[in-house]
Amino acid sequence: MNKLHENHTLSFERILFFSDAVFAIVITLLVLELRVPHIENHDPTDADIRHALFELIPKFLGFIYSFFIVGMLWIEHHRIFRYIGNWDFGLVWRNLLFLLFVAFVPFPTALFSEYFRSQSAFVLYVMGFAFAALGKILVWRYAVKNRETLLVAEIDDEMIKQISRRSWAVPIVCAVAIGLSFIAVAFGGFAFPLIPLVANLLYRKKKEAPA
Amino acid sequence: MNKLHENHTLSFERILFFSDAVFAIVITLLVLELRVPHIENHDPTDADIRHALFELIPKFLGFIYSFFIVGMLWIEHHRIFRYIGNWDFGLVWRNLLFLLFVAFVPFPTALFSEYFRSQSAFVLYVMGFAFAALGKILVWRYAVKNRETLLVAEIDDEMIKQISRRSWAVPIVCAVAIGLSFIAVAFGGFAFPLIPLVANLLYRKKKEAPA
Amino acid sequence: MNKLHENHTLSFERILFFSDAVFAIVITLLVLELRVPHIENHDPTDADIRHALFELIPKFLGFIYSFFIVGMLWIEHHRIFRYIGNWDFGLVWRNLLFLLFVAFVPFPTALFSEYFRSQSAFVLYVMGFAFAALGKILVWRYAVKNRETLLVAEIDDEMIKQISRRSWAVPIVCAVAIGLSFIAVAFGGFAFPLIPLVANLLYRKKKEAPA
Amino acid sequence: MNKLHENHTLSFERILFFSDAVFAIVITLLVLELRVPHIENHDPTDADIRHALFELIPKFLGFIYSFFIVGMLWIEHHRIFRYIGNWDFGLVWRNLLFLLFVAFVPFPTALFSEYFRSQSAFVLYVMGFAFAALGKILVWRYAVKNRETLLVAEIDDEMIKQISRRSWAVPIVCAVAIGLSFIAVAFGGFAFPLIPLVANLLYRKKKEAPA
Repeated sequence: MNKLHENHTLSFERILFFSDAVFAIVITLLVLELRVPHIENHDPTDADIRHALFELIPKFLGFIYSFFIVGMLWIEHHRIFRYIGNWDFGLVWRNLLFLLFVAFVPFPTALFSEYFRSQSAFVLYVMGFAFAALGKILVWRYAVKNRETLLVAEIDDEMIKQISRRSWAVPIVCAVAIGLSFIAVAFGGFAFPLIPLVANLLYRKKKEAPA
Repeated sequence: MNKLHENHTLSFERILFFSDAVFAIVITLLVLELRVPHIENHDPTDADIRHALFELIPKFLGFIYSFFIVGMLWIEHHRIFRYIGNWDFGLVWRNLLFLLFVAFVPFPTALFSEYFRSQSAFVLYVMGFAFAALGKILVWRYAVKNRETLLVAEIDDEMIKQISRRSWAVPIVCAVAIGLSFIAVAFGGFAFPLIPLVANLLYRKKKEAPA
Repeated sequence: MNKLHENHTLSFERILFFSDAVFAIVITLLVLELRVPHIENHDPTDADIRHALFELIPKFLGFIYSFFIVGMLWIEHHRIFRYIGNWDFGLVWRNLLFLLFVAFVPFPTALFSEYFRSQSAFVLYVMGFAFAALGKILVWRYAVKNRETLLVAEIDDEMIKQISRRSWAVPIVCAVAIGLSFIAVAFGGFAFPLIPLVANLLYRKKKEAPA
Repeated sequence: MNKLHENHTLSFERILFFSDAVFAIVITLLVLELRVPHIENHDPTDADIRHALFELIPKFLGFIYSFFIVGMLWIEHHRIFRYIGNWDFGLVWRNLLFLLFVAFVPFPTALFSEYFRSQSAFVLYVMGFAFAALGKILVWRYAVKNRETLLVAEIDDEMIKQISRRSWAVPIVCAVAIGLSFIAVAFGGFAFPLIPLVANLLYRKKKEAPA
C-alpha cells in the first residue's frame, strides 16, 4: 500500500501526464482538419487528385505551423515544470486554465486555414497562441511567488528571471503579428519565425543546470 | 524483471493514468463541437466572419463551462485518489462507472449548446454532471468502507468526513439548477458558479495534510 | 542518466501506458457516435427535442454496452499484466494485435447502433469483441509459454490455469450470442450479461495473491 | 518535494509518454476513417448491409495496413529509446519533428483508401511512412552524435551500427514501392510485407542486451 507521501508524488506526476495527454490530443487533432478532398468528378484522374491536394496547401501549412507552435508550448511547459518540484491546488487550477487555451487552438487553426485571407480569422488565430502563452506565464508566476514550497531548491534567482523573460517571446511576437496584419494579413504571418529569435534575445543563454 | 508487488504498484498507477487519459480526451473533445462556421457567401468579408463567430458565442460559453466542470471533476478525482493508497477490482469497476459518466459529458454539452433555450437540453446537461459527481461519491464511499485495505494510513476521520461532505456540492447545485430551470432556463445557468461556494460551505476548510 | 536496466523497466511501463491510452481513446470515441440529433423543425420545442432524444435510445444503449465491454477488456488486460513482469518483442507484437481489435470496436458499435435490427451488423459487433478476447488469449498464452522470462516468479500453476480458463468467457458468450441471433437478433443481445456469470463459472474463485 | 535530478528523470519520462500518447491517438484515429456506410434504402435488408460492408473492404485493409505500420514505428521508437538514457532540447525538437510525420499518417491513409487506384494517392501514402522513418533516423543519429551525454553507457559500437542499419528498412522499401507503383499501383502495395525481411537483412541478428 502506498503511503501519503508516495501518493503526493504520484499526484504530481498525474498533473504532468494529464497535461501531456491534453497536449498530445490537441497536436493530433490538428490533423483531423486535413480532410480528404471531395472531388466532383465521379471517377477522378490522378491529375484531379493532384489538383485537389494542391488546393489543400494552405491547410497543410496551417497544420504544420500550429503543430510546431503547440509543440513549442509543450516544450515550454516541459521547461518550467523541470524546476517545479511540488504542487498545490492553486497550481492545478492555473495549469487547467493554461490547458483550456491549449485545447482551444484547433478551432482558430481550422478557422484561419479555411479563411486564410481574413484578418479577423488571423487575429483570432494569433490571440489563441498569445492567450496560451499568457496562461503559461500565469502558472510560472504563481510557482515563483510560492517559491519556497513549489520550486526545486537548486534554482537560483538568475535562472528564474531568465525563464520569466523568455516567456514573453510568444506574446510579444503575437502583438507584432497582429499589428502587421493591419497592413496585410500575409505580413502578420511572417512574424512567427521571429519567436525563437526574440526568445533568445530575451533569454541571454546560460548553461542550464546539469542533471 | 518486476516482482509481484512492483507490478501491483504499477497496476495502481495504470488505473490513475487510464482515468487521466479519459479525462484529457473528454476535456479536449469538447472543443471538437466548435466547428468552423459555414458561411453562405462564397467570398466572405471580414464582417461576415465576425458575424458568424458572434453567433457561435453560446457554443464558446458551453465549451468553457464544460471545460471547467470536467476540470473540476478531474481535480476531485485527483483529490480523493490522494488518500487512496491501494486498489481492488471493486474500486476499478466503480471508477469505470464514474468514467462512463465523464465520457458522456460531451454529448449533453453539444446538445445544450445547440438548443440552449430548451429546458430538456438543460436538464440533461445538468444531470450529466450530477451523475458524474454521484459516480465519484460511489468510488469514495467504497474506498471509505474498505478503509483498512484501500485508504492511506495517515488519513483521519475528520478528513474523510470533510471530503465526503464536499462531494455533495455538485449534486446539490445541480438539483438547485434543475429546480430554477423550471422558472427559466437562464436562471438555472446562474446556479453553477455556486459550486465552489457550496463546496467550501460543506467543507469547513482545514489545512490539508502536508506532503 | 538512466542505466540500461532502468530503461528496460521504463520500456515495460511504456507498453502498458501505450495500451492504456489506446483503451482510453477507444472508450471515449464511442461517445462520438452520439451525435446531437438534427431536428427538422427550425425552432424546435422541448417536445421535439425529447422526441429526438427518445429515438437515440438504441445509440445510448450501444454506447453503454460497448463502454462496459471495452472496460472489461481493459480490466482483463490489467489483470493479466499484473502477473507479467517482463517483456520481449514477441509480447509487444501480440499486444499490438490485441490493440488492433480493441481499436476496431467503435466501428461495429456504430454500425450496429445504426442498424440495430440487422443480424449481420449484430454478428460483426459480437465478432469484434470475440476477436479482441482472442487477442488477449494470444498475449497470455505467449507469456505463459515463456513463463521463465516473462511471468513474475510468485505466480503458481493453479493461478495460471484459472486466468487461462477465465479468458474463454467472452469468446464462449459471443459464440452463444451469434447462435441465438439466428433465432432473433434481440435474443443475441440477452447473452452478454452472461459474461461475468460464465467467467466466474470458469474461474472458480480463489483469493488473489495479496500485494 | 522533488529534487532537480528527480525532475530531470520525470522530464525524460514525459517525453516518452507524450510520444506514446501521440502514437496511441494516431493509431486509433485511423479507425475514425471507417465510417458506417450510408445506405440509400430507407429500410435496408441484411443483404444491403453486407453489400455496403463489402464495398468498405479497401478501407478495412487500409486501416489494418496503417495500423501495423504505425505500430511498427512505435516499436522502433520504443527500440531506440531503450538505449537513450538522457535528453536535451535538441533531442526533444527532433522527436517532435518525428511525431509531426507520425501525426500526418491518418491523412494519406484516408486519401489512399478513398482513391485506392490513384498513383498520386499511393505515392503520398508511402512518402508519409518514409518521412516518419527518416524522422526516426534523425532522432537516432542525433543521439549517437551526442553519445557521451545521451546514450546509456552499456551500448557498444556494434549495437549502434545495427540499429542504424535497420532504420533504413522502411525508407528503402518505400522507395521500391514508389518505383513499382509506376508500373502499377497494385505492385507497389506488394512491397510492404518486405519491410521485416529487409530489416532483418540489414540487421544481422545478434542477441540484444539482456535486462
